[in-house]
Amino acid sequence: MQTVNVALGARSYPVYIGRGLLTRADLLLPLLPQRRVAIVTNTTVARLYLDSTAAVFEEAGIACVRVVVPDGEEHKDWATLNMVFDALLANRCDRQTALLALGGGVIGDLTGFAAATYQRGAPFIQVPTTLLAQVDSSVGGKTGINHPRGKNMIGAFHQPLAVLADMDTLSTLPEGELRAGLAEVVKHGAIRDAEFFEWLEANIDRLLAREADALAHAVRRSVEIKAAVVALDERESGPRAMLNFGHTFGHAIEAGLGYGKWLHGEAIGAGMAMAADLSSRLGLLDGKSVLRLKDLLTRAGLPTMGPPFKPDQYLELMAVDKKARAGRIRFVLLEGLGAAVLTDDVPSDLLRATLEACTTSVEASAAVR
Amino acid sequence: MQTVNVALGARSYPVYIGRGLLTRADLLLPLLPQRRVAIVTNTTVARLYLDSTAAVFEEAGIACVRVVVPDGEEHKDWATLNMVFDALLANRCDRQTALLALGGGVIGDLTGFAAATYQRGAPFIQVPTTLLAQVDSSVGGKTGINHPRGKNMIGAFHQPLAVLADMDTLSTLPEGELRAGLAEVVKHGAIRDAEFFEWLEANIDRLLAREADALAHAVRRSVEIKAAVVALDERESGPRAMLNFGHTFGHAIEAGLGYGKWLHGEAIGAGMAMAADLSSRLGLLDGKSVLRLKDLLTRAGLPTMGPPFKPDQYLELMAVDKKARAGRIRFVLLEGLGAAVLTDDVPSDLLRATLEACTTSVEASAAVR
Repeated sequence: MQTVNVALGARSYPVYIGRGLLTRADLLLPLLPQRRVAIVTNTTVARLYLDSTAAVFEEAGIACVRVVVPDGEEHKDWATLNMVFDALLANRCDRQTALLALGGGVIGDLTGFAAATYQRGAPFIQVPTTLLAQVDSSVGGKTGINHPRGKNMIGAFHQPLAVLADMDTLSTLPEGELRAGLAEVVKHGAIRDAEFFEWLEANIDRLLAREADALAHAVRRSVEIKAAVVALDERESGPRAMLNFGHTFGHAIEAGLGYGKWLHGEAIGAGMAMAADLSSRLGLLDGKSVLRLKDLLTRAGLPTMGPPFKPDQYLELMAVDKKARAGRIRFVLLEGLGAAVLTDDVPSDLLRATLEACTTSVEASAAVR
Repeated sequence: MQTVNVALGARSYPVYIGRGLLTRADLLLPLLPQRRVAIVTNTTVARLYLDSTAAVFEEAGIACVRVVVPDGEEHKDWATLNMVFDALLANRCDRQTALLALGGGVIGDLTGFAAATYQRGAPFIQVPTTLLAQVDSSVGGKTGINHPRGKNMIGAFHQPLAVLADMDTLSTLPEGELRAGLAEVVKHGAIRDAEFFEWLEANIDRLLAREADALAHAVRRSVEIKAAVVALDERESGPRAMLNFGHTFGHAIEAGLGYGKWLHGEAIGAGMAMAADLSSRLGLLDGKSVLRLKDLLTRAGLPTMGPPFKPDQYLELMAVDKKARAGRIRFVLLEGLGAAVLTDDVPSDLLRATLEACTTSVEASAAVR
């Protein structure tokens, strides 16, 4: 087992990474404020891991309230959040009851937001069971739900007490979700660590083959990079925004298609390719680096083109993004592989050129069907 | 104008108290992160103060998004909160747009929670227009909405940038709401300041006659007491709970009757009388002090008896209160007028005796009808 510390003063916490961790409740017991925990998960993960996870707690004399919600990004909404509140209240949970998120990014975000707002704030623990959640969403304290007008529009910063990333849970992950998780891994290399980016180029096939050592290294390095950025800027007033590389375009893709049509990681894959293209048009990034990024995404099985929306529709969708400030769209661009830069000063003709060049044509899209 | 500082480190803020403050937007302009503000109010307050408040901002070149929601505690729910989110998103407000709560406690709590969770946190300003909001709910950062199973069950701590308490708004306050606000004023004297309690005994008639000087003194002293307690314990891990004097019983009354049947201040009035009765049964408080508290409440036009629920129903309702810990009900009791004490160690026979003694009988209640 490896441990990465997320250094946030009084809100610091450990991220445990390794195999067989779901049975290591001993890591979590000292953190529980009371001898009860509410495990929130979805129907899919419940089938795989709920009984075994709950059993570890129950053997230690910790009562488990089990809350099973529907699976899918389309359920990251108020109705599902309210299912969690209903269950907590029906079981008389108080603000000392820790909420444990057992699942992927949707479960983590939803459970974290439930914990942030239940009785004005309850403790919570992240047990991410997807690669995407392990390398990204479980670390950093962003929680929230979607609104019909935009992804994660309602939420809070609420740091967990600990994160437990068990590599064994990746063995049951559908292929598409593994690839989607790799999008965020690639992102961490692209924005902050050229050496890690090279390591990914050399080891992408091992990751796709789910070699445990390779996966553990990718998760560890991703968490280290993310933890370092979050420690600089917990509430995203500045540098933390670099973690949104690919997300301005990616969120527009997700919102335009309707949440859940593409996996988040797929949208981010295409979004990163678009952001690299734009970086190149602005003269920040050389063409070879753009190709290296697109090649790596392609080898990871991720799209490098957005869906065939009109440029105006993309612009409309991007303008409501949380990252917009006073009506200006903010972009995370690359000055090189491993070096992100933030800007809201992008000439609109270059942005339109990227939107034209990096989206599939309607004809091509129709031909595929 | 008087200013009380709420000392919370980086989250410190001023409470301005005086007359004619609604036209003093100059106090707020330096606090706005952008030249736009979203004013959230209800239909009743909108009719009285929305145009004039917005005009002050608009004359200074600040754009105003106006959000008018239905009036009443029964609308302090998710549906109304979502009306605020919808309006913010429809107007492309971002996380730099300050939300201004113009209204009573419901508007303040709802708007504050919207600000706490809109795009993971937007700034907000409290402009309380009721006595209750001025002396209590606008200060201290508690925000939230109700859940069918309990009041304020969903919420967050989110401190405002400033509070603007304009005494002139109290001139339009319905008589019942003035009296309800006095309940929290009496509470502040009872828990922390015997001298202020005596001042209230001497000046209650001037307050009921709405003498501006008396009201300003009562608001100022209440805010000073509340600010001092909140500064000790922002997140209510300890002493802040003393501000809940009367609230364990009071919330049970509100939940049992259905929100909005009694005004919050009326429920707290009866709740304080019940808590004083229990304090006396435990030998903490002398009978004369109990009578003085009940007399002051009666002179303020507030109830000193709870509705005719059965003791078991009260106990059930109190057990789901946020202040319950690990199933034990926590009480704020008095050791004297001006001296609160916290305990979760109350013999159930004494509690039942209070519940029997301090509630109207079903017969009496039926006779009144």
